[in-house]
Amino acid sequence: MKIKIFTTGGTIDKVYFDDLSQYEVGKPRVREILETAKANITYTITEICRKDSIHLTDEDRAQIREKVAAEKSPLILITHGTDSMSLTAKALEGVSDDKVIVLTGAMNPYLFKQSDAPFNVGCALGALQSSEPGVYIAMSGRIFKASEARKNRGKKRFEKVE
Amino acid sequence: MKIKIFTTGGTIDKVYFDDLSQYEVGKPRVREILETAKANITYTITEICRKDSIHLTDEDRAQIREKVAAEKSPLILITHGTDSMSLTAKALEGVSDDKVIVLTGAMNPYLFKQSDAPFNVGCALGALQSSEPGVYIAMSGRIFKASEARKNRGKKRFEKVE
Amino acid sequence: MKIKIFTTGGTIDKVYFDDLSQYEVGKPRVREILETAKANITYTITEICRKDSIHLTDEDRAQIREKVAAEKSPLILITHGTDSMSLTAKALEGVSDDKVIVLTGAMNPYLFKQSDAPFNVGCALGALQSSEPGVYIAMSGRIFKASEARKNRGKKRFEKVE
Amino acid sequence: MKIKIFTTGGTIDKVYFDDLSQYEVGKPRVREILETAKANITYTITEICRKDSIHLTDEDRAQIREKVAAEKSPLILITHGTDSMSLTAKALEGVSDDKVIVLTGAMNPYLFKQSDAPFNVGCALGALQSSEPGVYIAMSGRIFKASEARKNRGKKRFEKVE
Repeated sequence: MKIKIFTTGGTIDKVYFDDLSQYEVGKPRVREILETAKANITYTITEICRKDSIHLTDEDRAQIREKVAAEKSPLILITHGTDSMSLTAKALEGVSDDKVIVLTGAMNPYLFKQSDAPFNVGCALGALQSSEPGVYIAMSGRIFKASEARKNRGKKRFEKVE
Repeated sequence: MKIKIFTTGGTIDKVYFDDLSQYEVGKPRVREILETAKANITYTITEICRKDSIHLTDEDRAQIREKVAAEKSPLILITHGTDSMSLTAKALEGVSDDKVIVLTGAMNPYLFKQSDAPFNVGCALGALQSSEPGVYIAMSGRIFKASEARKNRGKKRFEKVE
Repeated sequence: MKIKIFTTGGTIDKVYFDDLSQYEVGKPRVREILETAKANITYTITEICRKDSIHLTDEDRAQIREKVAAEKSPLILITHGTDSMSLTAKALEGVSDDKVIVLTGAMNPYLFKQSDAPFNVGCALGALQSSEPGVYIAMSGRIFKASEARKNRGKKRFEKVE
Repeated sequence: MKIKIFTTGGTIDKVYFDDLSQYEVGKPRVREILETAKANITYTITEICRKDSIHLTDEDRAQIREKVAAEKSPLILITHGTDSMSLTAKALEGVSDDKVIVLTGAMNPYLFKQSDAPFNVGCALGALQSSEPGVYIAMSGRIFKASEARKNRGKKRFEKVE
């Protein structure tokens, strides 16, 4: 079992510089998360972009879809910003009949003491290995189908679309 | 979707006192893990025991099986020490035809900076929501069937039994 | 021995919201730091302002000086942003002949796993209890006189002015 | 300014293995603490022993005193277990007329999320640079003279001897 991980940026990878700087998207943290958890899995990581997901364009999503389509591994994990994660998930629907694709990210940066990042990446991996082919979002401790998840900004969580 | 969580102790819940004390199993930490991750799930937690899993007896395992059998929710998460997690998983096989049962724990206590506990609980939750009925172990970033996992003490990880 | 703590904001108190928000100065964290360290000291905390120190004005500094002058405790700790900490320290010189005044802050927010905040507050407290009356800066593991410290932005540390 | 650091073990350096092991004293963590805090100081570290301080013998204390006496730097920081820290501090009294010697340690291991270790080491460094020659204990946010500190086990803190 080999897992392919694509990273696109988002809160999970946010870093901080100092008073004169802004909070920016840094290098992908998913490797640190897997190493700290001593995950006994085989994976490769490819960075597609490093953006706040509010700034992802249609071209970015087309590129993500292309990379996923071209990937040989049937198990694909994508780290992504939360604001447009649902959009990207929908843009990936139908990309493959035999791949399991799970998107995850974080409401609080990995570098924070209280980050949800390790929990979310774990949750995504659990779903990745247990699900039928399809596109899923693993956030807030839940596994949603691509078309069923939305971010509730006020409550800082993902919910099922009614 | 309502999840039932049973806790039994183990490294995940270990605490430290001071030079004159020993390292002991403390209160279950799974609630803190779910709250820090802002998990949007419904769950109840029942503490079955608070033991190092090397000290779990056949009576303890019988009691765990009884609790699982009597539980109405079809989604059951069990936190457990790592040393005899495989034994308990096997002891639970066949307990139900329609329940998904996932055991998890940690190689490093939740209270440690570098704990694998949040990642593992996330992984277990991801599998719980995506799997066919059966008994599973979620450790080291992998989802194992009950009879297929063993702890490799030297490498500090779970592996598939060959 | 009673210690007076004034807070003014800065990186030490920075929080993060989400992709659509910016990194902002939140509530003072010095109390959490002292409670986590189980500090056996008597103190009161007064929040003067909640600003990036690059935005502190002459009026803000006049107000800080006024509060320090009016304070009865001879031991005063001030948490402050790093960019203009030296300026405020100099503005406080001569405010009192019998008070020890120590400014500190952080290069990385308290909420980060890798924050220098607890170490710095500890360092400031150690100096506060051991120094002659005067104005000091406790940053980067060193105790500087007010006029002797400057921030080296490139090296992310405080240095002695040559 | 060059600081000499001696390490002797204690809770600050405790590590955890697994259910079958005990909690043991590991390698000194003071370097990690200083590096995380990006301390801009010059120091060398010498490990004297690696013991729970309840197991330190008169010979151990004689050896610590010898090392301190032979040391050229006038600024000496000692990391130590909490249970007999006061004993060692008293054993060091009179060792030198021109050295500042500060002992510190932790009530919770450095590897814990909620450790007091970085705060305590910071506190010790602040006192080290600001104090008259003598032997001091920096614990619980306070600077005690060697003969004035005692550990209150029940309250998990250091107090002034009445």
